[in-house]
Amino acid sequence: MDSDIRTSEMRSPLDIGEYLFTRLHQLGVRVIQGVPGDYNLPLLDYIPKVGLKWVGNCNELNAGYSADAYARIKGISAIVTTFGVGELSALNAIAGAYSEHVPVVHIVGQPTTSSQKDGMLLHHTLGNSDYNVFANISSNLAVTTVKITEPHDAPTLVDHALRECWIQSRPVYIALPTDMVPRKVEGERLKLPIDLNEPPNETEKENYVVDVVLRYVLAAKSPIILVDAGAIRHSALEVVHELVRVSGFPTFVAPMGKGAVDETLPNFGGVYAGDGSNKGVSEQVETADLILSIGPLKSDFNTTGFSYRTSRLNTIDFDTDHVQVRYSQYPHVRMRGVLQKIIQRMENLNIQPGLIRPKEMAHISAADSVSDQITHSWLWPTVSSWLREGDIIVTETGTANFGIWETRFPKAVMAISQVLWGSIGFSVGACLGAALATRDTQDRRVILFVGDGGFQMTAQEISTMLRQNLKPIIFVICNGGYTIERYIHGREAEYNDIQPWKHGTLVQAFGEHCQSSYSSFQIRTRGELESLFSDSRFSSAPHFQLVELYMPRDDAPAALKLTAAAAAARNAKT
Amino acid sequence: MDSDIRTSEMRSPLDIGEYLFTRLHQLGVRVIQGVPGDYNLPLLDYIPKVGLKWVGNCNELNAGYSADAYARIKGISAIVTTFGVGELSALNAIAGAYSEHVPVVHIVGQPTTSSQKDGMLLHHTLGNSDYNVFANISSNLAVTTVKITEPHDAPTLVDHALRECWIQSRPVYIALPTDMVPRKVEGERLKLPIDLNEPPNETEKENYVVDVVLRYVLAAKSPIILVDAGAIRHSALEVVHELVRVSGFPTFVAPMGKGAVDETLPNFGGVYAGDGSNKGVSEQVETADLILSIGPLKSDFNTTGFSYRTSRLNTIDFDTDHVQVRYSQYPHVRMRGVLQKIIQRMENLNIQPGLIRPKEMAHISAADSVSDQITHSWLWPTVSSWLREGDIIVTETGTANFGIWETRFPKAVMAISQVLWGSIGFSVGACLGAALATRDTQDRRVILFVGDGGFQMTAQEISTMLRQNLKPIIFVICNGGYTIERYIHGREAEYNDIQPWKHGTLVQAFGEHCQSSYSSFQIRTRGELESLFSDSRFSSAPHFQLVELYMPRDDAPAALKLTAAAAAARNAKT
Repeated sequence: MDSDIRTSEMRSPLDIGEYLFTRLHQLGVRVIQGVPGDYNLPLLDYIPKVGLKWVGNCNELNAGYSADAYARIKGISAIVTTFGVGELSALNAIAGAYSEHVPVVHIVGQPTTSSQKDGMLLHHTLGNSDYNVFANISSNLAVTTVKITEPHDAPTLVDHALRECWIQSRPVYIALPTDMVPRKVEGERLKLPIDLNEPPNETEKENYVVDVVLRYVLAAKSPIILVDAGAIRHSALEVVHELVRVSGFPTFVAPMGKGAVDETLPNFGGVYAGDGSNKGVSEQVETADLILSIGPLKSDFNTTGFSYRTSRLNTIDFDTDHVQVRYSQYPHVRMRGVLQKIIQRMENLNIQPGLIRPKEMAHISAADSVSDQITHSWLWPTVSSWLREGDIIVTETGTANFGIWETRFPKAVMAISQVLWGSIGFSVGACLGAALATRDTQDRRVILFVGDGGFQMTAQEISTMLRQNLKPIIFVICNGGYTIERYIHGREAEYNDIQPWKHGTLVQAFGEHCQSSYSSFQIRTRGELESLFSDSRFSSAPHFQLVELYMPRDDAPAALKLTAAAAAARNAKT
Repeated sequence: MDSDIRTSEMRSPLDIGEYLFTRLHQLGVRVIQGVPGDYNLPLLDYIPKVGLKWVGNCNELNAGYSADAYARIKGISAIVTTFGVGELSALNAIAGAYSEHVPVVHIVGQPTTSSQKDGMLLHHTLGNSDYNVFANISSNLAVTTVKITEPHDAPTLVDHALRECWIQSRPVYIALPTDMVPRKVEGERLKLPIDLNEPPNETEKENYVVDVVLRYVLAAKSPIILVDAGAIRHSALEVVHELVRVSGFPTFVAPMGKGAVDETLPNFGGVYAGDGSNKGVSEQVETADLILSIGPLKSDFNTTGFSYRTSRLNTIDFDTDHVQVRYSQYPHVRMRGVLQKIIQRMENLNIQPGLIRPKEMAHISAADSVSDQITHSWLWPTVSSWLREGDIIVTETGTANFGIWETRFPKAVMAISQVLWGSIGFSVGACLGAALATRDTQDRRVILFVGDGGFQMTAQEISTMLRQNLKPIIFVICNGGYTIERYIHGREAEYNDIQPWKHGTLVQAFGEHCQSSYSSFQIRTRGELESLFSDSRFSSAPHFQLVELYMPRDDAPAALKLTAAAAAARNAKT
């Protein structure tokens, strides 16, 4: 009754379910993924009502991976799972988004508030009346955890969670008991968009930092820019592009920064990752007298096992929420404001560092041997010329996300991988999410490179791609198992082998009953791959394609070998 | 150095890795499952050394499900995952084992103790130097969480964890940093087996309870026995069998107790689950003047939506750690001791309740219509006559685990399903675990019934079954989606549909490259299924088999319909 009275006083009463999804739509979300479960079914009914599309996944982990990639492209994404069983299955994907700073909204359908209050012995519980345990677990992997138990504060809680997700660029968790879904809230609130602005830096502090940085910039004789993960994740890309253009400084990317910089620019130099870098690159980065390091994330796999040979005394770090100049720290100064001013000042000062040019990018030879086998040292540079402007390249942890260091991207190519979290299997789900995020942009291809071991973890999501009539191009590197692990430990060990699959037949099994068309290929030689690449029916196919790429079992990109050796040494250290 | 000195003083120095796996072998474990990852690779090397077999799964969730079923059959099981990514992927399966009281040992390979101490920015971390977060998460879903950080207490911690796992019949979590794996401990300790005995009941208290119970038993005119989950999970089955035999009382099982009682006994009456029971069954249970209720677990799905019509005043509950007579509670009295004495006293008293016979088991008509369609009301009773002594029947949450109520089991048939936790997809992994647990017992068939929706969640584990040359018989109920959810909400909703697969082709994709043979079938009519059942080449095939069982989309077992209606009403209650 109480609630009904309030409803009658509302100007535009709206169900909580509709409120939530409308807000997501306002933020640019167009697809909601997940798996239906009885505690979320009533919520799913609202999805089409607000112009969103439901995409049911084969399982929740895949849904989470897919949502991760969707968020990397669209700025934010959402999955819906069910209490207990569903949400826990998605947890590794959510942890990955947390680790890698990707804004995913995890909405969990819960039993009714009264069932929870009464501690009923319902399915999907631990049998102990504890209805908070799963939210508590997820709170370790979310910047905000909210539970809707009353209509009156539901809009505030939803808006708060979505804002934190966006601003902090990390997952949030929203628990929604089924009885709350149809409860009414004031819809007028939707007319005011959620405030997504970062708080601006304090002006005096920002100016101070800008002055300090510029002093070093002006004094530098061989400055470079090094762009890393943080530049991509917190939507700082535009300002980074400006910095690279205006400064003209030689610019390099860390593996996690791959795709953040236009690699066709004359001042783009390649991937720097310590010992895993090409020689020309490491020479230039390590002899630079100033490194403008944007969003650094010096994890083992991003630095070829902590092998940077750069000095703190030559380095300025720009981060989401702080700047560090040599050893001087400036907390609570966001990079965006600082960089914007630095760019302005550079333009005003009419700095002409355009004369400084990067050395020739490390020579990538595609003809490393006379063999016709597809080796990593041949493959990745070869891929460069097949790529197109706007492509999205998803690479699995393992040979693919190390190999891609050697691929030079055309303009506006985006790279998706999990260099820090490194959950094997991620890329297949991510490929789905990338394809969903770009399905309406005609010319963006989604291209996946995944090993045969990683592929098996999440393979069934191919079915969802076919069901949705998506047309990614998937390369499965068939090399008989977990190559990255062979290089770390157990080169010949049975546990690093896998059951070989017939991937083309698998696609048939998923797709033959449905409308969508697809094709699959087996490629065993360089010649075959070159022909495939030059065939426009392949390169611009209007349907799903899978390519089995047979490569030698023990071959791996050089950077992987170095990183694995470092990991093995660390693991063995007693 | 310190450790080396101690090693020289040991009589039989042994690596911690070997100690752990030897203990598991002593407990009856023969197979270790999981997924290799760089933080667990060195540990995996010890598996073959102690006579265990490594079975690598396609992903960790599947590994967890498989370990769950393996433990239900063998008494305990173990999986190995890697830090962060691997362990979180397995979490839903571990939560299921926790919820359903299944003893699974979860061993997690971690980065070295020194990497952890230094807070290194390693892959598979959240990037925040927190090396405890995942163990903390798992501690919500484990009765004991231990972390091996020193050799000196490693054996104690391992033994403690394994004992708790066994005794409490729930998961434990063992974190093992890679540098600890080869450290030495005293191997002599292995000569003394881990004490797995439950503490005995206090004699006076136990006798008191036995007297109270017997008073009611002797006074009862129409007593019955109702066997539920707790009877199976805490290895009380032998004493329950004795009670059923000696008392001769009409005996019923709850859905979660299915398989706990020899259903060929003349005093076996069927499945009682409130309103979902057959009429003859519910009449007899609900009019009984005494219900000896063994290991009750009155969850929604186990009681057709809390629809028991029995009186507390007629009920005695026997539980793992307490007994309740009407409203009188007797904590810390384990059922096993009490039941043993009751059986003895019954034998001494020469009670002859054998005259009491259950009414005819509710009539199960296989000929419910003239149609040749395979309906649930026809299927499940029909399966009865095809089953054999010793079969293991795995059923997925949904139509299968409700349908199986109507199947009468031959002697010693075991049922595996997740009636409480209800994680869809469980059964495919569980089928693998059951097949691994029984691979050396010639005549035990493993038979799985799974819906097409649930199947898609974990389908790739078929590949592992083929790789291991296992020969389960898998029935995929092809009815176009999540039927149980259609009955709860959204009968025609798109979100309850799935992409239809060609399951036979899928098996080919997984198996064609390997040695093992397999076959698959498409069955659309009763006649076809009857022929298949009567063909011994099918019923006793020496290889993997998959049967697509086409059934009408909107058909469901009666008990499912009732349970779903109750769930829907609860979800809609505001």
